[in-house]
Amino acid sequence: MAEKSHQEGHPTKAFGWAARDHSGVLSPFNFSRRATGEKDVAFKVLFCGVCHSDLHMIKNEWGISSYPVVPGHEIVGQVTEVGSKVEKFKVGDKVGVGYMIGSCHSCDSCHDDLENYCPEVILTSGGKYHDGTTTYGGFSDIMVADEHYAVRIPENLPLDSGAPLLCAGITVYSPLRFYGLDKPGMHVGVVGLGGLGHVAVKFAKAMGLKVTVISTSLKKKEEALEHLGAHSFLVSRDPDQMQAAAGTMDGIIDTVSAAHPLFPLLGLLKTQGKLVLVGAPVKPLELPVFPLIMGRKIVGGSSIGGMKETQEMIDFAAENNITADVEVIPMDYVNTAFERLAKADVRYRFVIDVGNTLKI
Amino acid sequence: MAEKSHQEGHPTKAFGWAARDHSGVLSPFNFSRRATGEKDVAFKVLFCGVCHSDLHMIKNEWGISSYPVVPGHEIVGQVTEVGSKVEKFKVGDKVGVGYMIGSCHSCDSCHDDLENYCPEVILTSGGKYHDGTTTYGGFSDIMVADEHYAVRIPENLPLDSGAPLLCAGITVYSPLRFYGLDKPGMHVGVVGLGGLGHVAVKFAKAMGLKVTVISTSLKKKEEALEHLGAHSFLVSRDPDQMQAAAGTMDGIIDTVSAAHPLFPLLGLLKTQGKLVLVGAPVKPLELPVFPLIMGRKIVGGSSIGGMKETQEMIDFAAENNITADVEVIPMDYVNTAFERLAKADVRYRFVIDVGNTLKI
Repeated sequence: MAEKSHQEGHPTKAFGWAARDHSGVLSPFNFSRRATGEKDVAFKVLFCGVCHSDLHMIKNEWGISSYPVVPGHEIVGQVTEVGSKVEKFKVGDKVGVGYMIGSCHSCDSCHDDLENYCPEVILTSGGKYHDGTTTYGGFSDIMVADEHYAVRIPENLPLDSGAPLLCAGITVYSPLRFYGLDKPGMHVGVVGLGGLGHVAVKFAKAMGLKVTVISTSLKKKEEALEHLGAHSFLVSRDPDQMQAAAGTMDGIIDTVSAAHPLFPLLGLLKTQGKLVLVGAPVKPLELPVFPLIMGRKIVGGSSIGGMKETQEMIDFAAENNITADVEVIPMDYVNTAFERLAKADVRYRFVIDVGNTLKI
Repeated sequence: MAEKSHQEGHPTKAFGWAARDHSGVLSPFNFSRRATGEKDVAFKVLFCGVCHSDLHMIKNEWGISSYPVVPGHEIVGQVTEVGSKVEKFKVGDKVGVGYMIGSCHSCDSCHDDLENYCPEVILTSGGKYHDGTTTYGGFSDIMVADEHYAVRIPENLPLDSGAPLLCAGITVYSPLRFYGLDKPGMHVGVVGLGGLGHVAVKFAKAMGLKVTVISTSLKKKEEALEHLGAHSFLVSRDPDQMQAAAGTMDGIIDTVSAAHPLFPLLGLLKTQGKLVLVGAPVKPLELPVFPLIMGRKIVGGSSIGGMKETQEMIDFAAENNITADVEVIPMDYVNTAFERLAKADVRYRFVIDVGNTLKI
């Protein structure tokens, strides 16, 4: 199917901010959205989180970007229109859309509620939709989505600080569940205290786990222990601390996407412990094999979660008062926000107040 | 406890072949064994397999060898004496001892029948026993072992071709079970058709799996398909073949201890597929992280198996007529055998006829 530029032929006028080239600089952008199909919900975007993978995409750091890129995949809004066959939503409902907006519906992964691992998964931003058009994300006034890829936002979940759960939240919640690191009393390490890591601490605590934050320096110790309530803190560059904690953890959620050594982390695991990588370094990491063999340890990965589990995660967050720590910003601050994000200068997630600050 | 040289103070004269330095050359060696304790069995060694890790140990390639080294940890023999509290064996029984001969009996791993992951596991050769003496392996006339670390050899299991199951066999059987790669109809790859790999094919077939042998060249294709009965054969250096098989395997047992790329192997796995490493490269391997994350795949390790599982494996082998393909050699051929093993010039395991050929 030929690519359609700027969604020509789509009837609904839309407006947002887009990057036009690998400089990654965003600027206002007029485009269009498809008409609301029979299984679609259309919604006004209220808040949208700013994720590190948006930064990769606007700068084409993964080599898969096709410009213009309208980023944003931690989107909450309010339903303005529903198709004739929509069952989950009605006009006025609060709704959330995360990292994916479509999949094939026929493969094993789709049948198993794991649309996130469908080989034809369609990303919310920078993907190719079934009709051949490019998908544009939540840095925009309106969205249209198949209701299957939208979750209900519980009444008591704040919309601004709840938005990042749709990507950061499910990215850490899913591996805690899948790898069985969710039994009360288990000891779990969290590597990297950023957008993903700080939410991982909150979910792990709510599951009744003992949580240790592992960081390269002491800088985040007070924050981790006193603000987030982690049970302990380890400086990964301190061999004595690492030795003292050797063999104590059932699992580790590693959120770091920069290159980093796995050997010290594997040493923290008990026999049969699990190191789960959710940050994606572009270059291969060094994998020492002896610790895997001698302790029957595993290194695994995990990518967001299926729609069923995403709803479960949002409901669990609402029940346990889990939200992200956010800095709410206006739309026109976004370029500065990306500069700060690149320097990890945010505690811990920027969220754009799209509903009130996106001006045509 | 001070180290006792050549087991001084032990009452039972023993004789075997030992390496004296990192040349790895073996020559006749007089030493002694402990008296048969109340929970010990003493046995005459009949056959002993020659494993690749013996080669590492005699040349001190892992840096942990303490000379003299009497290798051998795939040992079968006939019981000559039992201690007063021995329950499993009587004089005349056939008995097997594998890679470990002791552990702490008090840690979580020991309580879970996973003595192989006990931090104080004692290796059959080159380990330190509870009394502080060095352990000497099966390239010797007699052995003394705590009955807990000895398995019963079923009547119908040939002693020569059964011996390698005690290390090679359990090393591949245990991960097939533990990682759930044992359900009839599953598709499993076996990388490396050597001592471990050829037994992995046999166990996997007996479990009802579809088995694909993965090798760097076509050389072993006929052998894999016609002799061992693998269902298919893949040349890992042929991108077209690898692409055609992408995403088809539930798991892979990787027996290769030389450095090798993991990326092509991860590509063969289905979503949530498992790559299990049982060969131990000394240097770290390159781990590409994207395939792990995008397919929730894991890389895991496994080391031999616990005593309960080793007995289960031996019984399963006997029921299913599984043995290793062996070349039976006399004791004084062992140096030549190690030279040939270093060149992978054996199909697939040397087994020393210790009982008939070890001459004082």
